[in-house]
Amino acid sequence: MYFPCGLSLLYRGLSRSIGKTTQRIWGCLSRSLVLSSQRRFPEFNSFVARTNTCGELRSSHLGQEVTLCGWIQYRRQNTFLVLRDCHGLVQVVIPQDESAASVMKILCDAPVESVVQVSGTVVSRPPGQENPKMPTGEIEIKVKTAELLNPCKKLPFEIKDFVKKTEALRLQYRYLDLRSFQMQYNLRLRSQMVMKMREYLCNLHGFVDIETPTLFKKTPGGAKEFVVASREPGKFYSLPQSPQQFKQLLMVGGLDRYFQVARCYRDEGSRPDRQPEFTQIDIEMSFVDQTGIQSLIEGLLQYSWPNDKNAVMVPFPSMTFSEALATYGTDKPDTRFGMKIVDISDVFRNTEIGFLQDALRKPQGTIKAICIPEGAKYLKRKGIEFIRNFAVEHFNQEVLPVFLEGSRNQNSPVAKFIMEEQRLELIRLMESQEEDVILLTAGEHKKACSLLGKLRLECADLLEARGVVLRDPALFSFLWVVDFPLFLPKEEDPTELESAHHPFTAPHPSDVHFLYTEPEKEDVKLLSHLLQALDCGAPPHGGIALGLDRLICIVTGAPSIRDVIAFPKSFRGHDLMSNAPDYIPPEELKPYHIQVSWPADSETAKSSLNHRPHPES
Amino acid sequence: MYFPCGLSLLYRGLSRSIGKTTQRIWGCLSRSLVLSSQRRFPEFNSFVARTNTCGELRSSHLGQEVTLCGWIQYRRQNTFLVLRDCHGLVQVVIPQDESAASVMKILCDAPVESVVQVSGTVVSRPPGQENPKMPTGEIEIKVKTAELLNPCKKLPFEIKDFVKKTEALRLQYRYLDLRSFQMQYNLRLRSQMVMKMREYLCNLHGFVDIETPTLFKKTPGGAKEFVVASREPGKFYSLPQSPQQFKQLLMVGGLDRYFQVARCYRDEGSRPDRQPEFTQIDIEMSFVDQTGIQSLIEGLLQYSWPNDKNAVMVPFPSMTFSEALATYGTDKPDTRFGMKIVDISDVFRNTEIGFLQDALRKPQGTIKAICIPEGAKYLKRKGIEFIRNFAVEHFNQEVLPVFLEGSRNQNSPVAKFIMEEQRLELIRLMESQEEDVILLTAGEHKKACSLLGKLRLECADLLEARGVVLRDPALFSFLWVVDFPLFLPKEEDPTELESAHHPFTAPHPSDVHFLYTEPEKEDVKLLSHLLQALDCGAPPHGGIALGLDRLICIVTGAPSIRDVIAFPKSFRGHDLMSNAPDYIPPEELKPYHIQVSWPADSETAKSSLNHRPHPES
Repeated sequence: MYFPCGLSLLYRGLSRSIGKTTQRIWGCLSRSLVLSSQRRFPEFNSFVARTNTCGELRSSHLGQEVTLCGWIQYRRQNTFLVLRDCHGLVQVVIPQDESAASVMKILCDAPVESVVQVSGTVVSRPPGQENPKMPTGEIEIKVKTAELLNPCKKLPFEIKDFVKKTEALRLQYRYLDLRSFQMQYNLRLRSQMVMKMREYLCNLHGFVDIETPTLFKKTPGGAKEFVVASREPGKFYSLPQSPQQFKQLLMVGGLDRYFQVARCYRDEGSRPDRQPEFTQIDIEMSFVDQTGIQSLIEGLLQYSWPNDKNAVMVPFPSMTFSEALATYGTDKPDTRFGMKIVDISDVFRNTEIGFLQDALRKPQGTIKAICIPEGAKYLKRKGIEFIRNFAVEHFNQEVLPVFLEGSRNQNSPVAKFIMEEQRLELIRLMESQEEDVILLTAGEHKKACSLLGKLRLECADLLEARGVVLRDPALFSFLWVVDFPLFLPKEEDPTELESAHHPFTAPHPSDVHFLYTEPEKEDVKLLSHLLQALDCGAPPHGGIALGLDRLICIVTGAPSIRDVIAFPKSFRGHDLMSNAPDYIPPEELKPYHIQVSWPADSETAKSSLNHRPHPES
Repeated sequence: MYFPCGLSLLYRGLSRSIGKTTQRIWGCLSRSLVLSSQRRFPEFNSFVARTNTCGELRSSHLGQEVTLCGWIQYRRQNTFLVLRDCHGLVQVVIPQDESAASVMKILCDAPVESVVQVSGTVVSRPPGQENPKMPTGEIEIKVKTAELLNPCKKLPFEIKDFVKKTEALRLQYRYLDLRSFQMQYNLRLRSQMVMKMREYLCNLHGFVDIETPTLFKKTPGGAKEFVVASREPGKFYSLPQSPQQFKQLLMVGGLDRYFQVARCYRDEGSRPDRQPEFTQIDIEMSFVDQTGIQSLIEGLLQYSWPNDKNAVMVPFPSMTFSEALATYGTDKPDTRFGMKIVDISDVFRNTEIGFLQDALRKPQGTIKAICIPEGAKYLKRKGIEFIRNFAVEHFNQEVLPVFLEGSRNQNSPVAKFIMEEQRLELIRLMESQEEDVILLTAGEHKKACSLLGKLRLECADLLEARGVVLRDPALFSFLWVVDFPLFLPKEEDPTELESAHHPFTAPHPSDVHFLYTEPEKEDVKLLSHLLQALDCGAPPHGGIALGLDRLICIVTGAPSIRDVIAFPKSFRGHDLMSNAPDYIPPEELKPYHIQVSWPADSETAKSSLNHRPHPES
């Protein structure tokens, strides 16, 4: 028998919080980063003009002659200024005596955010002037010499964390936004986590870091791919969605432990919190099974996890796709709280409520419910209304709220028809308390579960907005979701199938026979090289890819993946700083044998070829 | 005064050999890799079915029960087979007894390059059958169980290092070519060197690894950029030639030590040994000067250099651009051997030889020479002819060979006019010996130097082909070439200037005033965001980028950068394996609002949209 090589790709449901990160004061950064990788003490001052960073000076440095370089954060009464670099803040005393007039002039005249270099002595702050909130708050710098390295000429907004900027402004002046504590912290943490992943993979487990091309060929299936014109008429490269084909070809090539921090491209238009280019930790191994990959990844995350975050517990629990759908209504359940979906069809087998009867009569028809703890207390009428509207708007589906205290159901025309024994059975099944509310819906299994899965999260938001603590934002509840279906019905046309993830997966061992009885879906001509390769002694292999941007987002608690990427695109795929993508004159397209097909209504755009349009707001 | 931030980019001339690498037997690989990073002992067998790699078994493993996975390299008389994985080869004894008939059948029937898993005991080879050339040559595996993991169905060529394949065949079946010792060695060495560079930069010196976008905007100046169509009519992203702008913006953003192993793109058409996408170690620092960058890089290369190669000596010697041009005729001189260019204009101030007189009369006119040691002995008439033809063909220039033994110049009509005192002065200046030949040319300084620089390398090849040892292929002679000019005359049109490297460099301090007296060259509109950023408190900064592919090429002694890249493009920019770039049907271009401008003579190509053209040969 022929076994297509490779094993099912594994899926990870990442339970996550999108909690707000608390503001920290400057200077905690360097401390927490050192803490998070205790065996490393990078030298931040090698090769450069400074002797120390602004954030590192303490009482133990008293009397030392230091040279610091940094930005003027603010100035007080021409007496003090606070100097900032990416490691923190330090107070500099501006000399007041006549002999230091030139130093005083430099430090007093330079606008805020100018870059200066100062040399002087570390001295104690006068008693009572220490600042315990500032890591360098015990000391200050008595300046001897100063140099203005570059004056700040203009500043579209103040570089202070508490000054709120619109997202568009932040993106347009990204180089200023990067000076914020939060962006510095996010990018440094990202760099350190990736470095530890590399250590784990390369140094501990013998993986080979291999770069694969990004100028490639169209891959069938999956997301839309960007095209790159070549100098040969009509011929285009495609920017790959992932190194999937290459990593399998590397296995055929005998490179049996591959990884890459891989740039990937997906042209998904304007979907929220997506980027046209993103990064994944791409891994493939030969001679491995699903358990092997799971252990590898558990070890990887544990090894690379920042020490100042809650630890990652291994092994991760595991759940099948169908269990996740039935219990949480999604393939990426947040398991940090309950409110699980319960099938309550049996309670209503003999109901007289019409729409429940109807639902149960249909194929795969079910009645499902979730229990909102203390819902009666917290949701009120407005909350209930929101839930019902949400169900109608997003799923075209009815949701019936059932209060456990019978008297509260007076307003509900349907709830009145629930008989007492049904109510008691419901309470038993749902393990409900008196103040709880049960949300009940009826319909086809997957649809009912999806709706309640979404409502579960919406209700959690509602409860937390009212002060209930449901999800611990500091808790990371990793979870394996396994046994994904190979195909799912297409959303646009349920009579057709599409890959649940992508077509480069082996079928579940118990389903292999379907490959022979079911018709082929996909155009194989584009993959002839891969199919040929699999005939040339391909080892059994398996792999995984972790979305790095999203992972770092979860670790840092950032509200958007844009906050863990140095130069992200806007949600419409624009670089608001440089104004990319941009118009290109026809003569520059000529070598690529392409021309623009201007839509009929685009005369304005066409004629604006030489004008810089306004960035989106 | 206003100082544009940044310092001159530094340039490195890498003296290098393109020596052939000697064939090694399988199994040296894992040994030499372990040696090259002594403090690391990666576990190659974690998470997978095998207990050991094929290359690691020694006498110390005798008696151990092992499970190995690998490819059948060859089989001898149905008695032995040699199993290969990426760590080496091991001999497996096929059991001959009746009770193991099924194991025997599996191991005897499977075609060469099939993938098998065997379990058995490590035993000594019978006395006299040890193979000292094979790292595992003292032992063999007495097999108990075997499993055919995947039979090899077809093989376009034998996977043996001594079977020579054409470059096109190697690229078409890259997944098989990757099984060769050399490709495995090159890719693993590359991965390890990059890992050590990361350790040096991140862990030792506090650099932050930051990913920058590859979907960007057209950058003025420099090489041609690939364009990526967006879904907005007429708007395109450009694939950047380097992260130059981003790394400067990161400095403005206060991320003061940046590095990235960056993918870069240049559409240079079909230039030999170039790739449309390549990788550079991209570095930028704030508050640094040229010396700082030089020390950083010297340390980086020393730290990451493989232990089994000749050590890198630091500090690297330094040479100005004009010195390199005058002495070696190039900005990347090979300093492993002499034959330096000497200006001998003064010898011929009063010559009667017409073309020398003419040359000296012109502005910047010079007479230059190199001395070929023992040239009279090795070059012969054919060599001399080759040299003269080369000069005419490539430089449209005359070269005059002067033999030190006067009698040999009889054939040269011009040499006869060199007077005895000129000949003696020439010998003194050139430090020539009797058997040497002096090659002499006259003309404008740069042109004469360039010609002799090329001839110096050509003659070195000629002499080495005749057995003379001039350049030690195991020697790495790093050299800094500094003080590059900001602009050079355009090759196509010497009345116009172009950036010697790229426009993102600061002028030499002594030339800053030219910025105000000379007209602007470049369209600054495309760079308005960068210019704006430099006004917002940009720190002084400097950086460098090392071409990784070429560096690994030098370290491994590979004949082409294609040999250090897993999936390279052909010299015409094609992926011969997948046939990229490829035709894309018009309907798939529609969302990007582009259409192909078919050249008049391309009806065939157009109509072949659904046919797969033959790969280039």
